[in-house]
Amino acid sequence: MASEVKMYDTTLRDGTQGEGISLSVDDKLKITEKLDQLGVHYIEGGWPGSNPKDMSYFEEVKKLSLQSAVITAFGSTRRPGVTAEEDPNLKRILDSGVEAAAIFGKSWDFHVTEALQTSLEENVHMIYDSIRYLKEKGLEVIFDAEHFFDGYKYNQSYAIRTIEAAQEAGADCIVLCDTNGGSLPSEISGILTELQRDVTTSIGIHCHNDGELAVANTLEAVKTGAVHIQGTVNGYGERCGNANLISVIPNLQLKMGISCLGEEQLKQLTEVSIYVHELANQTPPNSQPFTGKSAFAHKGGMHVSAVLKHPETYEHITPEKIGNERRVLVSELSGQSNLLFKAEELGIPLDKDNPAVKETIEKMKKMEHLGYQYEAAEASFELLIRNGIGEKHEYFHLDHFKIITDREKQGTFTTEAVVKMDIQDQSIMTAAEGNGPVNALDYALRKAIGEYYPLVHEMYLSDYKVRVLDEAEATASTVRVLIESSDGKETWSTVGVSANIVEASWYALVDSIRYYFMKHEDRLMKNETTVFHPEIGVRNH
Amino acid sequence: MASEVKMYDTTLRDGTQGEGISLSVDDKLKITEKLDQLGVHYIEGGWPGSNPKDMSYFEEVKKLSLQSAVITAFGSTRRPGVTAEEDPNLKRILDSGVEAAAIFGKSWDFHVTEALQTSLEENVHMIYDSIRYLKEKGLEVIFDAEHFFDGYKYNQSYAIRTIEAAQEAGADCIVLCDTNGGSLPSEISGILTELQRDVTTSIGIHCHNDGELAVANTLEAVKTGAVHIQGTVNGYGERCGNANLISVIPNLQLKMGISCLGEEQLKQLTEVSIYVHELANQTPPNSQPFTGKSAFAHKGGMHVSAVLKHPETYEHITPEKIGNERRVLVSELSGQSNLLFKAEELGIPLDKDNPAVKETIEKMKKMEHLGYQYEAAEASFELLIRNGIGEKHEYFHLDHFKIITDREKQGTFTTEAVVKMDIQDQSIMTAAEGNGPVNALDYALRKAIGEYYPLVHEMYLSDYKVRVLDEAEATASTVRVLIESSDGKETWSTVGVSANIVEASWYALVDSIRYYFMKHEDRLMKNETTVFHPEIGVRNH
Repeated sequence: MASEVKMYDTTLRDGTQGEGISLSVDDKLKITEKLDQLGVHYIEGGWPGSNPKDMSYFEEVKKLSLQSAVITAFGSTRRPGVTAEEDPNLKRILDSGVEAAAIFGKSWDFHVTEALQTSLEENVHMIYDSIRYLKEKGLEVIFDAEHFFDGYKYNQSYAIRTIEAAQEAGADCIVLCDTNGGSLPSEISGILTELQRDVTTSIGIHCHNDGELAVANTLEAVKTGAVHIQGTVNGYGERCGNANLISVIPNLQLKMGISCLGEEQLKQLTEVSIYVHELANQTPPNSQPFTGKSAFAHKGGMHVSAVLKHPETYEHITPEKIGNERRVLVSELSGQSNLLFKAEELGIPLDKDNPAVKETIEKMKKMEHLGYQYEAAEASFELLIRNGIGEKHEYFHLDHFKIITDREKQGTFTTEAVVKMDIQDQSIMTAAEGNGPVNALDYALRKAIGEYYPLVHEMYLSDYKVRVLDEAEATASTVRVLIESSDGKETWSTVGVSANIVEASWYALVDSIRYYFMKHEDRLMKNETTVFHPEIGVRNH
Repeated sequence: MASEVKMYDTTLRDGTQGEGISLSVDDKLKITEKLDQLGVHYIEGGWPGSNPKDMSYFEEVKKLSLQSAVITAFGSTRRPGVTAEEDPNLKRILDSGVEAAAIFGKSWDFHVTEALQTSLEENVHMIYDSIRYLKEKGLEVIFDAEHFFDGYKYNQSYAIRTIEAAQEAGADCIVLCDTNGGSLPSEISGILTELQRDVTTSIGIHCHNDGELAVANTLEAVKTGAVHIQGTVNGYGERCGNANLISVIPNLQLKMGISCLGEEQLKQLTEVSIYVHELANQTPPNSQPFTGKSAFAHKGGMHVSAVLKHPETYEHITPEKIGNERRVLVSELSGQSNLLFKAEELGIPLDKDNPAVKETIEKMKKMEHLGYQYEAAEASFELLIRNGIGEKHEYFHLDHFKIITDREKQGTFTTEAVVKMDIQDQSIMTAAEGNGPVNALDYALRKAIGEYYPLVHEMYLSDYKVRVLDEAEATASTVRVLIESSDGKETWSTVGVSANIVEASWYALVDSIRYYFMKHEDRLMKNETTVFHPEIGVRNH
């Protein structure tokens, strides 16, 4: 097992093969800078010539001042029946101006004859010639042996012949690919162990997650000698994705003692994970290992005091080492220590002898009994605590509203809301149209408030979830609404509960605005706003 | 390595520890039935006495006719300083009426002294006494050795002592828990191998996914002798979740040749995965291994014909074996066999040369593109197929409706709906009050239809779920409503999609009534009804 390995990121190429993952050239450049700062050794930027976007990436990336990452171009071996010099694909790699290239070739005999439709002999020449040619041109060449593990199982000697050709041609690294993603860790280590009798070139590993084993397979390969790791940020990739570097890196570095990144760089891991999720427009999964919001979340009252005293016995690693943080969740089971921890986290001065602690816990329990749940609604929870210690944060008052949903004879649906509010001792009445009752109410509310507090137009409703709760009382079921709001930079969540879905939504909407105003009270009072853009407040629900 | 292992599902208990995962008693009962059909051997229903919901589950679950699954109650060892007989927690397990119990006890010395605040000696007695007591009462007893792997690393002899106590007390199975989820596969297998010198009782494994290694760790444990597997559907669970049974099962059965479920049962895996996601109101991740929508999706033109001719060389397993399907993203061939299979299942005569097949697939794709999803809405899907072959099932026609939600000055919320329908060539107008727009609409609709078809009063809305879909077009988000209806014996689900939540609900409501009428057309036409009880139709939403 090596004491150090190289990280090869293919988020920009293999990652974008994932369904629903799409990155602009600008996104790709931003991710390149971020990965370089993180200390990733190689960044595979794309396949020059496969599309104009990739070509333009290679143009633009030259203008960045990177610290140390090597930008790599991806491409196939030369076509059958042409020389390497004549091959347009290899030419484009040279044109892209990179210093390193990853060339993929077939290692499974079946795929040579069936997909490439050429002879086994010619495929070996294609591998040799392509690598040799790029080496002669002065590039660092990484050979991706496609379908290697499956190929090895079907025709071992041919699979070995393909990588021997790469070795003879002078490849700097031979990467064994589990292209179909179905290998087990024991197969990976078994084959790697056997292989090292014949192969002296550095070995790399490229795994897919079809068996939910990509991270384990990658670690297993490192244990049996691989020194070059391919994967993607957050495990994006075709079908079930590639090996998730965000999990591979801390496992290697913090558990197996293998150096990948600097200690300070490792602390950026959570930020990089979330950053890439945001650019790829993916909701970061709360449960994502290492960097998810729930990854170091503790529930339950009883052991919270023990967690706080001895976190290392309740956590597999220290969250700060990868830039994540401990969270204590507020739940039905929770008690005083949770509340105090939460208050401290929020910077609210609260002593355990303060009578507000007991009152707030009682209030919380009463709300939870009604169906409120604060785990996913931290903004509502903060308001609850602040109300408990006497802070009001009431900026407006509802007089009444009316919402009318019409389905007309011709099939058209319309919804209108009329709202009357009291704000700054003034009475104001507005109306708005929307896609459904909650949406119309949201618009009307925002429109009314915006007359006095234009700050409200900076924020918008970014997600809306409804759950029907059927607690013991079967006669009346209750609806819990979770609203997520955003100002484009931060998001916060609020909750409302009622038998009436509109009423429940109303409570969550009001909390959402109160929370934002509270966080920006200085600007609110000065009537400042960075954006006055009513459309931002006009998302549909 | 055993040739057969037992699957122990803890979705209903450990799964609900996941942030944002919340299941009603009714959801839990439905999941129980589904897991029983799948062939899971043990279903951990909850912790009796930890909350009223779990107690009510154990009452209700007795009324189900399960095929073979053993319902298990979870609980801790007795408290320090009391006898097992006196312990209220153990008493509640006995009161719950289960035949098997999983008792967790501490295996890490630190947690005994710090979290339990008792002596190491007393903890060993607590384990022994609790198991012994439940065994004497005739229960099958599974011992969950909490924090076992970490405990073993810190104080090996004490960790072993705790499981020896369980063995001596007669535990039927000793489950080693990687509670903090940070172990590596090699650690799991190393410790299991050593342990088997001292332990003769069956060994189980319980892994968490904090290192993204829960599936690999579970497989590794089976390789080194574990015969009892704990995990959850879709890997739900605290922090980063538990071992995902949906991935563990096919890896064991299709790759390692270890029998878990019957071959026919395994084909339900994808359906079960999606079903549980829907009940838990979680978006099924496209990239989920094995059962995700993208798990067998093939992109790109070049190799598509090869994929179709030789899918086994492009897929790690055959998707049909687990009830998933191949998707060729550029081809139109997908869907047909699925549709024919479904039609046959529903007893609808449909030949593959029938032009209705192609038309229905196109309609289905169009609907899916809009955001419809039929996996959890089979009633809507059946109506779609039947419409495709020319069956109409239109019993009523909407002229228009209007819904008014009022929040009055005094804080009262009211919602009224006015509906005008054409039924049996007559025009009818009614109004009804409800808890929110959809509820009011539901009442008014039912009231109008009930004048001609009293059969409608036999059924009622039993669940209602809303999900906001944000497709590529960020300018307008869409809402998907899933409605579950019931007549007290059967339940069926329907779906509606629109930017307007009321419109989406309307489509799902209409499908729900049409479906019930279609299934009882003979009685409908004779104007028969077993119950005429308007209140049944008056559930709240």
